[in-house]
Amino acid sequence: MNKEKNIVVIGCGAAGGTAAQFARKTDRKAMITVFEKGKYPQYSKCGLPYAISGDIPSFTNLIEFSEEWFKKVGITLHLNADVEKIDTKKQVVTVKKGNQMLEQPYDSLIIATGSIPWLPNIKDIHENDKLIQGVHILRTIDDAKQISLFVEKGKKATIIGAGLIGLEMADCLHKKGMDVTVVEALPSILANTLDVDMAELVLKNLTSNVTLHLNSLAIKVENKNGRINKVVVKNNEDGEEKRVDTDLLVIATGCKPDVTLAKTAGCVIGKTGGIVVNDKSETTVKNIYAAGDCTEYKDFVTKQPVLIGLGSIGVRQGIAAGVNAAGGSYSLPDGVLQTCTSEFFGLEIAAVGPITSHIQNQSFVSGKFNGLSLPEYYPGGKPITLKVVANQENGKILAAQAVGHNAAQRINTLACAILAGMYVETFRKLETAYAPPVAPTLDAVTLACDAVSLKISRRK
Amino acid sequence: MNKEKNIVVIGCGAAGGTAAQFARKTDRKAMITVFEKGKYPQYSKCGLPYAISGDIPSFTNLIEFSEEWFKKVGITLHLNADVEKIDTKKQVVTVKKGNQMLEQPYDSLIIATGSIPWLPNIKDIHENDKLIQGVHILRTIDDAKQISLFVEKGKKATIIGAGLIGLEMADCLHKKGMDVTVVEALPSILANTLDVDMAELVLKNLTSNVTLHLNSLAIKVENKNGRINKVVVKNNEDGEEKRVDTDLLVIATGCKPDVTLAKTAGCVIGKTGGIVVNDKSETTVKNIYAAGDCTEYKDFVTKQPVLIGLGSIGVRQGIAAGVNAAGGSYSLPDGVLQTCTSEFFGLEIAAVGPITSHIQNQSFVSGKFNGLSLPEYYPGGKPITLKVVANQENGKILAAQAVGHNAAQRINTLACAILAGMYVETFRKLETAYAPPVAPTLDAVTLACDAVSLKISRRK
Repeated sequence: MNKEKNIVVIGCGAAGGTAAQFARKTDRKAMITVFEKGKYPQYSKCGLPYAISGDIPSFTNLIEFSEEWFKKVGITLHLNADVEKIDTKKQVVTVKKGNQMLEQPYDSLIIATGSIPWLPNIKDIHENDKLIQGVHILRTIDDAKQISLFVEKGKKATIIGAGLIGLEMADCLHKKGMDVTVVEALPSILANTLDVDMAELVLKNLTSNVTLHLNSLAIKVENKNGRINKVVVKNNEDGEEKRVDTDLLVIATGCKPDVTLAKTAGCVIGKTGGIVVNDKSETTVKNIYAAGDCTEYKDFVTKQPVLIGLGSIGVRQGIAAGVNAAGGSYSLPDGVLQTCTSEFFGLEIAAVGPITSHIQNQSFVSGKFNGLSLPEYYPGGKPITLKVVANQENGKILAAQAVGHNAAQRINTLACAILAGMYVETFRKLETAYAPPVAPTLDAVTLACDAVSLKISRRK
Repeated sequence: MNKEKNIVVIGCGAAGGTAAQFARKTDRKAMITVFEKGKYPQYSKCGLPYAISGDIPSFTNLIEFSEEWFKKVGITLHLNADVEKIDTKKQVVTVKKGNQMLEQPYDSLIIATGSIPWLPNIKDIHENDKLIQGVHILRTIDDAKQISLFVEKGKKATIIGAGLIGLEMADCLHKKGMDVTVVEALPSILANTLDVDMAELVLKNLTSNVTLHLNSLAIKVENKNGRINKVVVKNNEDGEEKRVDTDLLVIATGCKPDVTLAKTAGCVIGKTGGIVVNDKSETTVKNIYAAGDCTEYKDFVTKQPVLIGLGSIGVRQGIAAGVNAAGGSYSLPDGVLQTCTSEFFGLEIAAVGPITSHIQNQSFVSGKFNGLSLPEYYPGGKPITLKVVANQENGKILAAQAVGHNAAQRINTLACAILAGMYVETFRKLETAYAPPVAPTLDAVTLACDAVSLKISRRK
């Protein structure tokens, strides 16, 4: 028979685009078709705030793989193409593209439909089912372009949500000279990324640049001629309400997986709301794979399912989905480390593994290093705080968080340690690179593990 | 009996000072005595070039643990105290301090006598057994102070040896406005640290700042009124001789372990010329430990003995020696990774594991990443080249070398991988931290391993 394989990818974000690319690398002859409902080929969603701030000079710079690129490698890319139905018996998808309806058979199907923003209940943000002028989410290039129209020096911006994207946006709008307010429902910032003690290190830096309302909800907006001019912020503790002048409101309260299509195909949806996939990015339905923000996968440390919200994981699942869909073999590690980083207001943060409140069924202990990036005698060392969390009984490394100089690279080293199943007792003896103008004799990574090790031995 | 333990340390460099410190941490009551033949307490030898350049404002800043500090923690420190004899039967050392002879009994003895510079055969560098004026080695604070007297903007300096210290000195003297020439006997720079292909990345940067003579020996110096004014450099290949104007000559051709005392005590000296020690920093003689540059220990990857020439390893051996000498228990990993870094002329380099020419008894394969530290779409990414070397059969990671942005931190991650015994196949799936202003989706560390992995699978 030797027919060429038909591989179909739904969604051309980081996961879908990568899947198509790796399917092509794996099978040079396969027919590969990508359907993307938006109008752009694969671009960096994570880069959007920096295109608004101007750090990235143009929105088109965000496009990582152009239509020409897909053509060159022989991948058929349909933009503005909405997959409406998956027929798993006939193995055919039905696609709406403009006024046309296409039918595309598949041998392997990869679902990479991403996620959709979750909007909190804020009174009067909609008019005729559309967000009023000046109220925005940030998910696509078009969203970012819309936001850009409202960015103006000296004007007031409010961000709802003090997670990674919320704070990145706060920094970017602040850089553009706006007067920024951040509203967060929880008592702490970056609650999904950092433990409270580590988040506090970011707080000071943040509040010297923006106005922060913790424990607070945006409950209502007011407008003038259909354009937002105030947001009402209510404090959860004392019930006090403040009317905050706002010319631009950005809602960054997270996303939920877009699983509508996957559900119709019979894919099992997990308790977090994402499509259940295994280490090969296979769903529960034969010949259907899924990757990226629409999926859930287990956490490497807790083995509990977590929603995939990081582009870096989406890309890795995309690799697995693409290779396996094309007949190759690629297995991901037994869970996600959720290694992540960001930078705002000149401060780098990074983390790997679960935050401590997510660690269950085992007792843990943590140790911290708080010092400088260079030997004490060498001027110019920059502050770095690193926290390492380990199992209290055996010292196995479970998680780490860092705030300050080269936080991301240090967290990568600990991510490697977690992936390798290392114990603090071994890790603290790691020879790290030392030279006066580069790093101290004992780096933050080993000293934080030393602190953990000491606590464990004292408890024994 | 319950007599307090008598711990004696010979040498107060990084290894000896650290050993005393950790002996104290392990046993709060022990009598701890340190004999140092120089006149300064524990200071950073690695920092010397940067005190000459002025990056470190004063030589006294290099002192990491002062005499007061030793006093405070109850360690008796004798400076200008030369240990002349070790009586292993009576367990007593004989020490010359000024005109006094001291006898000091020990229960545990730690030898940390360091190393002595190795001088190549250069005609006329000595007069009356002393180096002539303007000819220097760099080993102690006093050496550095002497060199400083000859540092003058617009004058000419020649460095012999293009290893780490030679190039650090070249950078520091260049910063001070000197016209610098570097003479290296081998055809490549940094021959003990980087493979030739990686060293070449440093070459261009180096030669745009200094004059470099590779494959060349300094065979003779000339002087004027007892002060050097020329060095004769001979090319090994064509035999051509050049007379290079030189106001300051720094010899940085490496060191040899100072094992005179250890030999008299009967410690076995290994084939590299260093004192043989095990993972507890024990020598072959009962109750005698050794740490730092005077020792040899096996390489983690090749398991062959190597001389310890890095302060970072000396400190770790010092920890082991100090803890074990005081009755605690501390084992080092089964070999040294030799993780190292430096920075010259604005370029960071780092390496871990053996250079490829030292890998024996196994076939290996290498892969390289050559790109930017940030995603392509984000401006300001800095060049980074990373080479990873792995066993060709099974992909076990053996070594890595990096030149460019955050080379040291990236090498730390690979050092962790080597210590954990990881394979490229696992490591390349490591989730590294990603955010546009911080790091790309797939970091150099994983992409270099990807390249290795690809080569291995193609050869199968």
